[in-house]
Amino acid sequence: MSVPRVKRLAVIGAGLIGSSLARAVREKHLAETLVVADRDPAVRRRVMELGFADEVPATAAEAARDADMVIACVPVGASRAIAAEVGPELKPGAILSDVGSVKGAVLEAMAPHVPAHAHLVPAHPVAGTEFSGPDAGFASLFENRWCIVTPPEGADPEAVEKLATLWRGMGANVEFMSAQHHDLVLAITSHVPHLIAYNIVGTAAELEETLASEVIKFSAGGFRDFTRIASSDPTMWRDVFLYNRDAVLEMLGRFTEDLTALQRAIRYGDGDTLFAHFTRTRAIRRSIIEQGQETAAPDFGRRAAEKPKHEQS
Amino acid sequence: MSVPRVKRLAVIGAGLIGSSLARAVREKHLAETLVVADRDPAVRRRVMELGFADEVPATAAEAARDADMVIACVPVGASRAIAAEVGPELKPGAILSDVGSVKGAVLEAMAPHVPAHAHLVPAHPVAGTEFSGPDAGFASLFENRWCIVTPPEGADPEAVEKLATLWRGMGANVEFMSAQHHDLVLAITSHVPHLIAYNIVGTAAELEETLASEVIKFSAGGFRDFTRIASSDPTMWRDVFLYNRDAVLEMLGRFTEDLTALQRAIRYGDGDTLFAHFTRTRAIRRSIIEQGQETAAPDFGRRAAEKPKHEQS
Repeated sequence: MSVPRVKRLAVIGAGLIGSSLARAVREKHLAETLVVADRDPAVRRRVMELGFADEVPATAAEAARDADMVIACVPVGASRAIAAEVGPELKPGAILSDVGSVKGAVLEAMAPHVPAHAHLVPAHPVAGTEFSGPDAGFASLFENRWCIVTPPEGADPEAVEKLATLWRGMGANVEFMSAQHHDLVLAITSHVPHLIAYNIVGTAAELEETLASEVIKFSAGGFRDFTRIASSDPTMWRDVFLYNRDAVLEMLGRFTEDLTALQRAIRYGDGDTLFAHFTRTRAIRRSIIEQGQETAAPDFGRRAAEKPKHEQS
Repeated sequence: MSVPRVKRLAVIGAGLIGSSLARAVREKHLAETLVVADRDPAVRRRVMELGFADEVPATAAEAARDADMVIACVPVGASRAIAAEVGPELKPGAILSDVGSVKGAVLEAMAPHVPAHAHLVPAHPVAGTEFSGPDAGFASLFENRWCIVTPPEGADPEAVEKLATLWRGMGANVEFMSAQHHDLVLAITSHVPHLIAYNIVGTAAELEETLASEVIKFSAGGFRDFTRIASSDPTMWRDVFLYNRDAVLEMLGRFTEDLTALQRAIRYGDGDTLFAHFTRTRAIRRSIIEQGQETAAPDFGRRAAEKPKHEQS
């Protein structure tokens, strides 16, 4: 189908998500003019070399000027500063959005800086890889991935629909929910799993010399996948945990209680408890497969890989 | 290269590993006669239908009679019973081995039942999938995967080499270490990661109704990969934790201490601690890639999938 194009789209930040968004918009012709701003001169040079933007200004303010839609693709902790810089530039009817993994804090940080004549519509594409920077992006990153849009109370339906249309144009499946609910769901589906991965890799890093080298050698036993997510962008994830603190602490509390129970079962040789638990967890897996949410290769919210042969029937 | 064939090879248990082993042996012509025993009549019928065995007896004793090599492919908790049944049947020079994920407890359980004229050489192929049963197996499961052989003190070098040769014949890379050291290494590279995955999926299963359904829907954020390992065979994993208790509790203790520190950093907004930790964990990932232990797709010790496009340079 042909998608209504955004006249002037400004992307702030040319990291993995920003550069993927720009590539997708360019490839699918979703904007007449695509502006990609980045404060880092080296990144701007690279963006010009890669050639997926019409204009590559240094500041968010410059990018936002006359833009119909501005999407901040920066770590959650930078949302306030970006909104403060962009706000005064927003023209009547302009839409300000973002791609942060936390939505409640972003809404709080950005809302005060958005003039009444413009629209704030935060969103979160549930997609990514463990790589960072303008070279890590690719146009198909959002295909068949969820993009959760979290409009504030009383948001303009037309503005919300414009943003949703852009994401659908990039191949994403759009879902709407409140920022608070988003943060709770993502805490358990993404934030806590990432924290746990970062943690176990850290634990291994502290091991005695000889052991540590073998942990790397035999990492295929399961550990290797944790090292994959534990190599995700530190700044982005630091901000996720700082800004989604309450939901993460809540879910982490439940996780720890449950882990303590399993630990106790192991210590006292309670095989029945372990067996019962390991059996129950199979049901969740089945639901995911039934809902078609599964891709053959685990990808920690990253791009799906090819189906391994032994699963092809 | 042509591999010296085992005259009569007996595989006890036709689950994922046993049936994969049998398929590999058959495909690579590594045995003159391949005997696959299983106490479950339904499994025996299926093995005959699949046709990867020359003989399909009901008991381990029957399978071990006149065998030159017997490999127990059963949950770790069943090793003692299998050894007790097989021991008296072992002919002079025969080799008894296994594929258990725990080696210290297996050595202890099996050794007393092996006659002086036979050889006990435990081993652990670090490979698998979350699927179970004779239909889940495939001949290439062990290709380019590690097989850790843990010979007891004073084991016969010739017997050890014979087993190693069989595994190399199936495409595995053989490594030797003590049972105790194996159990410590696997506790952190495989056992604790699996326990954590089982645990977080269990935590999600307990969530409020509405939340639980969305956890499944948005599982791509990272959670989905945990559900994958959390659907592994409950009996096998119950036994792993019961029989590698000390090493698992030791590593779990370190994991929990570290997680508590991260939790505290989140609670008090200590971004520097989080950032420093998330940066340090990147080094381990690099070492794994440098050592060529990485396959593009995370597979939790499972088979490698195709390299996703965005990683092909």
